Amino acid sequence: MLVIGENINASNKSVGQAIASRDKKFLQGLAIDQVSAGADFIDVNAGTGQGSQENEAMEWLVSAIQEITDKPLAVDSDNPTVIEAALRQYRGDKLIVNSVNAEPERLGAIGRLVAEHDAWVIALAMGTSGIPDNADERLAACDLIMDHLTGLGLQPSQILFDPLVLPISVDCDQGMVTLRTIERIRTRHPGAKTALGLSNISYGLPGRKLINRGFLLMAAYAGLDAVILDPLDAKIMSFVKVADMLTGKDSMCRSYIRSHRRGILVE
Amino acid sequence: MLVIGENINASNKSVGQAIASRDKKFLQGLAIDQVSAGADFIDVNAGTGQGSQENEAMEWLVSAIQEITDKPLAVDSDNPTVIEAALRQYRGDKLIVNSVNAEPERLGAIGRLVAEHDAWVIALAMGTSGIPDNADERLAACDLIMDHLTGLGLQPSQILFDPLVLPISVDCDQGMVTLRTIERIRTRHPGAKTALGLSNISYGLPGRKLINRGFLLMAAYAGLDAVILDPLDAKIMSFVKVADMLTGKDSMCRSYIRSHRRGILVE
Repeated sequence: MLVIGENINASNKSVGQAIASRDKKFLQGLAIDQVSAGADFIDVNAGTGQGSQENEAMEWLVSAIQEITDKPLAVDSDNPTVIEAALRQYRGDKLIVNSVNAEPERLGAIGRLVAEHDAWVIALAMGTSGIPDNADERLAACDLIMDHLTGLGLQPSQILFDPLVLPISVDCDQGMVTLRTIERIRTRHPGAKTALGLSNISYGLPGRKLINRGFLLMAAYAGLDAVILDPLDAKIMSFVKVADMLTGKDSMCRSYIRSHRRGILVE
Repeated sequence: MLVIGENINASNKSVGQAIASRDKKFLQGLAIDQVSAGADFIDVNAGTGQGSQENEAMEWLVSAIQEITDKPLAVDSDNPTVIEAALRQYRGDKLIVNSVNAEPERLGAIGRLVAEHDAWVIALAMGTSGIPDNADERLAACDLIMDHLTGLGLQPSQILFDPLVLPISVDCDQGMVTLRTIERIRTRHPGAKTALGLSNISYGLPGRKLINRGFLLMAAYAGLDAVILDPLDAKIMSFVKVADMLTGKDSMCRSYIRSHRRGILVE
């Protein structure tokens, strides 16, 4: 399972302030900690939401993080000009653009950038009307995105479909809707990957981390390839190791046993 | 998810001694604790392995536990005469016989008892040659058991197929073999149930409880109906609640929220 570390996100107050004040040390520390904890990608979100300010913030942020790690980044914005700014600054050879969806305008603009830079892209399984409450409409959005992006020359393996999650506190079938969507994406677009942020599932309920952890295990069995989470949460990272082992991805249980020896598994 | 509490088992030293010395208070305490923790069935295993001694021990044990709870029992023995002794003593209206498998002699003798008493039965997905390392042979054993037991008049809903588990420390594909077996049993025998003991999966590895918990979540998504576990392990019982909620079995998340209010969810 690929882990995309979510901690450098301007919607978190201390991160937003650090970006605004260009506190490089603080943000580089967040990146280093996530890499040490096992993140495969570092998500960077500079979301001031203020036009050119966000472009500058993103350029600065990408440059700051790349000074201290070679781990690839996930450039997190729904604004094509912010993504373009990040791509201009980026010096690595692998990158995720986070994210596109099936809205024609965004798909056109962001798809073009992704294709030009031969990047990977997280593609949200939704169109203009928000997150569908059913798998059929999410699949239809994936089909549309797949058609458009492969038409631009992308390989299916560059696309990470996010099946999306609605809170089970609102509709108790939504856990199964997301899990079945993962399975159906895998069947329908076997060359593509899937990626998921966990936290929406538990919105409005107590014991959220417990629920998120349980959902991760189920999603892993449904075939999830990548997860967006806080790598400093040792309990959920332990379950990432368990999930890989139980789905047969950890030959001879080597990675799990190594994690145990390093003392980083938490029950 | 039905929970079958596994704690009254003579292979546990203190339980074996309590059965040998007819320490009713100790064993009744184990039953009460499991019921309080949410067990739906209490497994009782008097396994001295010594012929008539085990018959007497089982009769006494069934009687002792039924004095203090109306929860149904799972009578745990591979010996038809021990099971018969337990059934003779049993006063409830629902009971699980644990277990039968596809060995002709055992299937004949235990099947007859199950049918006579209109009980439920755990049916191990194996025949005379031990646990198969693949789903096909496990399915073949299920087919044979299903034919035989329905031929005796049992409803499929009285049969809980145990897909069985081999340790992933020996073969890292075995997690998936068991999970796929659950799915295939559900497809092939939709009227039947599935039941699983978790602990074999983690045999030989460190952090066993972590692995067992992860496996429970995956098995729940694969469609598991019943699990054999220690209900006094609050962490795994919390995951039983999470599993029910995430698979859409907990309407309005009511049971989960009630468990949270009672303070019995453990992260």
